[in-house]
Amino acid sequence: MKLIIANRTYSSWSLRAWLAVKASGHPFEEQLVLLRQADTRASILRWSPSGKLPCLIDNELAIWDSLAIAEYLAEETPPLWPLDGASRAVARSISAEMHSGFQALRSQMPMNLRRNAPLKTLSPELVADIQRIETLWTECRQRFGDRDPYLFGAWSIADMMYAPVCLRFESYQVELGPVARDYLQHVLAHPHILEWRAAAEQETAVIPDYDV
Amino acid sequence: MKLIIANRTYSSWSLRAWLAVKASGHPFEEQLVLLRQADTRASILRWSPSGKLPCLIDNELAIWDSLAIAEYLAEETPPLWPLDGASRAVARSISAEMHSGFQALRSQMPMNLRRNAPLKTLSPELVADIQRIETLWTECRQRFGDRDPYLFGAWSIADMMYAPVCLRFESYQVELGPVARDYLQHVLAHPHILEWRAAAEQETAVIPDYDV
Repeated sequence: MKLIIANRTYSSWSLRAWLAVKASGHPFEEQLVLLRQADTRASILRWSPSGKLPCLIDNELAIWDSLAIAEYLAEETPPLWPLDGASRAVARSISAEMHSGFQALRSQMPMNLRRNAPLKTLSPELVADIQRIETLWTECRQRFGDRDPYLFGAWSIADMMYAPVCLRFESYQVELGPVARDYLQHVLAHPHILEWRAAAEQETAVIPDYDV
Repeated sequence: MKLIIANRTYSSWSLRAWLAVKASGHPFEEQLVLLRQADTRASILRWSPSGKLPCLIDNELAIWDSLAIAEYLAEETPPLWPLDGASRAVARSISAEMHSGFQALRSQMPMNLRRNAPLKTLSPELVADIQRIETLWTECRQRFGDRDPYLFGAWSIADMMYAPVCLRFESYQVELGPVARDYLQHVLAHPHILEWRAAAEQETAVIPDYDV
């Protein structure tokens, strides 16, 4: 398997798919396509028919989009989703909510692992997104959490979908209640997150308008 | 089961989930929440924690978001996705691409079953969305289509995800190549689409700024 990703510092969707491949246990190689280069779009289209990353190549088959990649891997590695049916249904609901929503968060608080400063002002839409995410994390922990510290107990695709949000909340120094804060700290301490961040620190490409 | 939907005339995401429940064969009741009423948000939040529709209620369990609802139903009704693994992976890829993308199409060409007129001008982003969708339909038909006329042969979640696009292309009189046009006509003739449109015609609520 080969996973095509964009800059680890900035590409939250690449991170989600990468976490799913890591959790699947499949050996895989990573191929990086740098964003905002003259040949970026052509390079992506060599692999991904949608023109977007991430894209997973399994033999001749291209699977694009982080959620489709996660579902593909979960077919062979069922614990990527919660094993209980009701938990899995809610995990898919919150994953889909992240996948299609939170536009204010995504546009106004882009992932940037080099950043460590709050926004000067938060728009009402951004505040609403943050509040919804905090509610969602807190409810999942209280309703489905067990001895493991993640949203549905064991580390699952739902956590992978929200991992870039944890990184954003850290970068932008977002204040959270105790349950959400505790969850976030466990995600940031996950060995796959540490590995991704270490690799990101080796990247030299900087996108200027992501800078603070 | 109970499916909470918004106005059939306008709610493309409600249609996607409704098609999945219909295809699953489960008996279900429909509950309509009218958009843009004083109590719309409160009515939605009674059922859906995300504040968005559609939402499927199965006993005590709420599953929100069209794609999560489709995956939930597909667990018990496997033919909702293509049965071949590679076809299923691509079907999930294009479904996820619809779920998170095509922003120009979604904002500039909203579903409105009462409309029958082209846009005066098409933005470059909208033209790119339309071209990508036409390519995607054509490639799926050529690569995966069999004697059945849908994207992967038999009617699947991938078709349900693009059914509102077919309705938009008809409403806005978008010109298409022969393969895409043939596909669209088969979707529009599907009995579930006919049933949805007949129910939509009974709706009296009109959202003024959706009008032409």
